[in-house]
Amino acid sequence: MTSINIIGTGNLAWHIASALKDAPNYELNAIVARSENACHDFKQLANSCVSIEDLTPAGLTLIAVSDDAIVTLTKKIPYTSGLFVHTSGCVSIDVLSKFAHSGVFYPLQSFSKGDPIDFKDIPICIEAEDEDDLNVLEKLGLALSQKVNRISSEERKKLHLAAVFINNFTNHCFTIGQDLCHTHSLSFDLLKPLLAKTAEKALHADPSKMQTGPAKRNDIKTMNQHLDQLEDSLQKEVYLTLSKAITTYYGKKL
Amino acid sequence: MTSINIIGTGNLAWHIASALKDAPNYELNAIVARSENACHDFKQLANSCVSIEDLTPAGLTLIAVSDDAIVTLTKKIPYTSGLFVHTSGCVSIDVLSKFAHSGVFYPLQSFSKGDPIDFKDIPICIEAEDEDDLNVLEKLGLALSQKVNRISSEERKKLHLAAVFINNFTNHCFTIGQDLCHTHSLSFDLLKPLLAKTAEKALHADPSKMQTGPAKRNDIKTMNQHLDQLEDSLQKEVYLTLSKAITTYYGKKL
Repeated sequence: MTSINIIGTGNLAWHIASALKDAPNYELNAIVARSENACHDFKQLANSCVSIEDLTPAGLTLIAVSDDAIVTLTKKIPYTSGLFVHTSGCVSIDVLSKFAHSGVFYPLQSFSKGDPIDFKDIPICIEAEDEDDLNVLEKLGLALSQKVNRISSEERKKLHLAAVFINNFTNHCFTIGQDLCHTHSLSFDLLKPLLAKTAEKALHADPSKMQTGPAKRNDIKTMNQHLDQLEDSLQKEVYLTLSKAITTYYGKKL
Repeated sequence: MTSINIIGTGNLAWHIASALKDAPNYELNAIVARSENACHDFKQLANSCVSIEDLTPAGLTLIAVSDDAIVTLTKKIPYTSGLFVHTSGCVSIDVLSKFAHSGVFYPLQSFSKGDPIDFKDIPICIEAEDEDDLNVLEKLGLALSQKVNRISSEERKKLHLAAVFINNFTNHCFTIGQDLCHTHSLSFDLLKPLLAKTAEKALHADPSKMQTGPAKRNDIKTMNQHLDQLEDSLQKEVYLTLSKAITTYYGKKL
């Protein structure tokens, strides 16, 4: 039985704690919360919910907090025994170098608390200098997911950057599409089959071969009509920049 | 039985022709193709495949060609009887005003030839001045899809614009994500669960409430690290513009 402490009560902490409940051979010793209130969602998941000063050692300490808080919180951990890992996509493994055993356990997914998610399909990126530590993380990863990958800090940074395009930027394009519908009293539902198909195609084929639309065709007339219809200057800027990127990508310079 | 002519042999023409095969009360009289070669995929679907000069009248003539070609081809149709509709998202109904009966039949989806698609979930936007013509289009729409909507030319233009954000721009973000993976010898499969989840969330919740990432948090340090990693100037520009749009949208001015 491996005992685990999780520092943090955010979405990722909650999802890992929930997934660990069904994993044999793991025991969630404690959750570290900033307040009694933050403990609420973890009552059924961990043996205890404590402040960081009261944390007792565990085989594995998982630091699942925002990137900026990792270093500060790490300094407050009242023990140094066991393996310490953070869960960030873009923070180097080096920030945990004060510990003899350290690593990274990064599930590549966007988590929202309460949103049910099947951990077994989430790629987990693990990193550790020590081969034994890597094996511990691999074992934990495989207890939660079918997809565990050894990924270096440099590679992880590239994945995190790509994830910004895949998730953050596409989601904002969805938001703009939705806002345009609402502004003109049109139902966003009209666009949902297109949204679903766009994602489905990218999942099963090379998206660069699926590109369509006025920018791909360098259809300046349609693009100008679209720009004329956009009243928001930021929407205009997104339209211009992405259209230029697409037209150039497909070899037809504006 | 309503006889239909389809002008065009592109992806949309093929999908409508395929869907009509299973629709009772409709007969596909002829497909208009530019060459014998283009007829090939329609052999099982239409009674004949002809050049536009040889087209014989039908109850409904469906002009499923690129936006720029609509007007030119319309002039070559050797009859004026029946209802004439085009299938474009951004061309006004007015381009068909030379006909006594005209309209628009716009399926809001991205079509790739050979890619199986279930027409019944595709929203079809119909428009006609004459109520009887509108009923004809509604009947045809409902023979193919469960979702038929009366949408004006102005509304259709807004939907088409929103569709550019929902499909064209997100697809290019997927392409950039994929390219970043390939450049750094990482499998794009690692990002696919995130891609799927991003779309799933936008389909079932308000995407503006699902936004995450450094731009949303106005996390300048992470954004600068990302920009430093991007070598392609167009990728940099997309990153900057979308990050600025997101940060501003969520009220944290850069």
